[in-house]
Amino acid sequence: MPATPNLTQIVILGASGDLTARKLVPAVYAAQCQHLFPGRCQLVGVARRPWDDAFFRSHLTKSAPKMEACSYDSWEAFMGQTSYVQTHLETAQDFAELGKRLDALAQGPAHRVFYLAVKPELFLTSVENLSHAGLLDQSGGLNRRVVVEKPFGTDLASAKALNAALLKLLGEDQLYRIDHYLGKETVQNILVFRFRNAMFEPLWNQNHVELVQITVAENIGMEGGRGGYYDTSGAIRDILQNHVLQLLAMVAMEAPSKLDPKSIRDEKVKVLQALRLPSDMADPGKIIVRGQFDGYRDEAGVAKDSQTETYIAARAYIDNWRWGGVPFLLRTGKHLPARFTSISVQFRMPPHTLFGSYDECHLRPNTLTLRIQPNEGIDLSFEAKEPGAGLTIKSAKLAMDYTDYFHKPSPEAYQRLLQDVVTGDQSLFLRSDEVEESWRWADSLRAAMQATPLRTYAPNSWGPAAATDLFGECEGRWAQG
Amino acid sequence: MPATPNLTQIVILGASGDLTARKLVPAVYAAQCQHLFPGRCQLVGVARRPWDDAFFRSHLTKSAPKMEACSYDSWEAFMGQTSYVQTHLETAQDFAELGKRLDALAQGPAHRVFYLAVKPELFLTSVENLSHAGLLDQSGGLNRRVVVEKPFGTDLASAKALNAALLKLLGEDQLYRIDHYLGKETVQNILVFRFRNAMFEPLWNQNHVELVQITVAENIGMEGGRGGYYDTSGAIRDILQNHVLQLLAMVAMEAPSKLDPKSIRDEKVKVLQALRLPSDMADPGKIIVRGQFDGYRDEAGVAKDSQTETYIAARAYIDNWRWGGVPFLLRTGKHLPARFTSISVQFRMPPHTLFGSYDECHLRPNTLTLRIQPNEGIDLSFEAKEPGAGLTIKSAKLAMDYTDYFHKPSPEAYQRLLQDVVTGDQSLFLRSDEVEESWRWADSLRAAMQATPLRTYAPNSWGPAAATDLFGECEGRWAQG
Repeated sequence: MPATPNLTQIVILGASGDLTARKLVPAVYAAQCQHLFPGRCQLVGVARRPWDDAFFRSHLTKSAPKMEACSYDSWEAFMGQTSYVQTHLETAQDFAELGKRLDALAQGPAHRVFYLAVKPELFLTSVENLSHAGLLDQSGGLNRRVVVEKPFGTDLASAKALNAALLKLLGEDQLYRIDHYLGKETVQNILVFRFRNAMFEPLWNQNHVELVQITVAENIGMEGGRGGYYDTSGAIRDILQNHVLQLLAMVAMEAPSKLDPKSIRDEKVKVLQALRLPSDMADPGKIIVRGQFDGYRDEAGVAKDSQTETYIAARAYIDNWRWGGVPFLLRTGKHLPARFTSISVQFRMPPHTLFGSYDECHLRPNTLTLRIQPNEGIDLSFEAKEPGAGLTIKSAKLAMDYTDYFHKPSPEAYQRLLQDVVTGDQSLFLRSDEVEESWRWADSLRAAMQATPLRTYAPNSWGPAAATDLFGECEGRWAQG
Repeated sequence: MPATPNLTQIVILGASGDLTARKLVPAVYAAQCQHLFPGRCQLVGVARRPWDDAFFRSHLTKSAPKMEACSYDSWEAFMGQTSYVQTHLETAQDFAELGKRLDALAQGPAHRVFYLAVKPELFLTSVENLSHAGLLDQSGGLNRRVVVEKPFGTDLASAKALNAALLKLLGEDQLYRIDHYLGKETVQNILVFRFRNAMFEPLWNQNHVELVQITVAENIGMEGGRGGYYDTSGAIRDILQNHVLQLLAMVAMEAPSKLDPKSIRDEKVKVLQALRLPSDMADPGKIIVRGQFDGYRDEAGVAKDSQTETYIAARAYIDNWRWGGVPFLLRTGKHLPARFTSISVQFRMPPHTLFGSYDECHLRPNTLTLRIQPNEGIDLSFEAKEPGAGLTIKSAKLAMDYTDYFHKPSPEAYQRLLQDVVTGDQSLFLRSDEVEESWRWADSLRAAMQATPLRTYAPNSWGPAAATDLFGECEGRWAQG
């Protein structure tokens, strides 16, 4: 058996796009700087445009955000290991050429990561062409991994078809489906918080939790010419099906017995499988509120009679022993007053009112909030005696701010995820069954949503007022940041 | 039945002492300022010295700390309602005179609070004289209440004798035994924190708590001529028997069904009754460490061969269903490096190690610390993922600072307690059975302590090194502030 190669080639297909210069290349450079890759690394940009190495390097140097000084390699030295190979992704014979160029650049055996920074329509074609050119053949102990970005399908049927087609060309262990939310420190910390600390897990179930809410709020609208894509997608497919359900799976999953990718993903998929289908529920209007911001139909690329939801809020249930009966209130929307992502676990009211009068609606003092972004941290609200002569009870907060506390910045999600691809850890990537279970539920939600009105809301408002009613009487209200 | 009087006379016996000017009178003034007394109030100083009203007022004005401006009454107007009555506390006929003066000052029916700011030897004599002069007679709906300070007895026998003698002269409902710790906001907040919030109580037992530690650390020694008194008392009788056991009772008690004085004190006394007697345990050296700071015997008033402990640490057990097997590590001492009082509830280790290597001694991430003084607040330690490429786990802290949070100062303990005496709420005062149960355990501890060496420790150290061994292997260590 040959020695394990010391070189990894990171091959970005669609390298002329924005994501490459803005996120991927800086992430590779930062990971190299911190010696996070096992061995050396070459970066190879692949796209249709007639660029050459020099042009690609100069493009990256101009477009990439300023990087911190690096002990490993200067940016210039890093660029010296960066190449460009013009390739038409639809043209099979170009991939044979690409293979030759990669071999020539490697000058010996090398692992390879193919990062598909391409339109979804080109996912399968690209992988087919990689496969037919022999570029996914792992014989000789050479890793050949493929990274794909969402959207991974547009519904259950298309996701299943895509998975089936891809898995004829490569193994599940070669396929890294990215949800960049899983690369965020605060999302990775969900499992550490839950399973490293013994004191929260006993409370983390229907006996003690009244309600969980998860919000991915965006304050932008259709800026940057997103209208065309977005109008075919909408809030459910763009955010809820992936980011929100991933957060839900992390917060609701059972403790795995091991921290390996299979154990983690097995537990996550069990949560998604246990989600009650909205289309099986009696009154969609009571569990779903969809909205569209006023002015959306005037955006470039958007149909004048568009029915696309830019806001979705849903009351979901996980039908298992741990969470039976506990509502999970999920929400995402464009053009809301703030940009934030958070998970709030609201604990039940005390069984007995010792202090003050009995007001059921104001007796939920304990909410644990995992702030995912932008102000990463954890808050635990509780009630305390206000200093003073009487017995006045006020809400107070135990708080921890992630960056303040650790005095170091969180690495970019892409850096973490690329590192995991290179080292072969699939824990933070979606397995085919996770993707399919998410679509199964999202499809059901989209079907059920048709029976509810599409409500307009003012930009920079918190969405349709009707979303308030997804909370039962005294159950609380939506977080606002 | 006559109308309830609108006037309360607060009669301080031993009014020429330090406590009166420094604490009691400011507390009465502050309570008046905040309209915390029902109706008007007159202050009457009683002592042996041949002072008159004018001298007493001028003494108070000079000695009392500067008070904030008051909407109710100016300090001068308050002093106008302040009188002095020269009285020999051992002289019965002086009390008949005192009664006449009080009647004359009241000019009608008045409630009365007799505050005994006197040496313990004068407790019973004073109350006897009050009683014989008819000053404790509550007929006609006039409240006659007696406030006593610790020490309340010096052991179980003396406390029982004192209680028995006092309770022949007045009812338990007339007797307010002060432990000024119970007037502290953060101590009152223990019950609010535990029983207003539903999320801590399910964890508050031997299933989830590994260990509780309670510290009252003092950084002073025998300053202010305390040596004479202290040498007859020691750390157990001065602090452990009262302040520390009161904190223990508050943190360990069951939830009462009502917030009335009887229900609260019933639950507290049950905890004290359940304390395992140190003298019943096999090896005193394993559960008790006593110390004396180096130089103590050179202090004024201290015997040259004094065996008095200025430091005591003990491993206690509450033998009931909730706390069976959970050690309560109690500690107090003079001349320690810091002055602080805190209660730390240390939760058990996780049942399974998912993250990192298995190191039992470093797997107790969760401690809830109730900071009683001086930096009042609550901390909850937990472990989180440190931002970065790997999976490094670090301790972090959810924190809340009482004064920062509420932006208002905590009132003085005495103000709260005097207010409760005037309004007739005995919740924060010790009932006779509480005092006796505390002595029962303290006596047992003192007896068991005799079989352990008296260890010297350097002033400004954390006491005898042997105290570390009161923790079992991997159980943690003493808090240091």
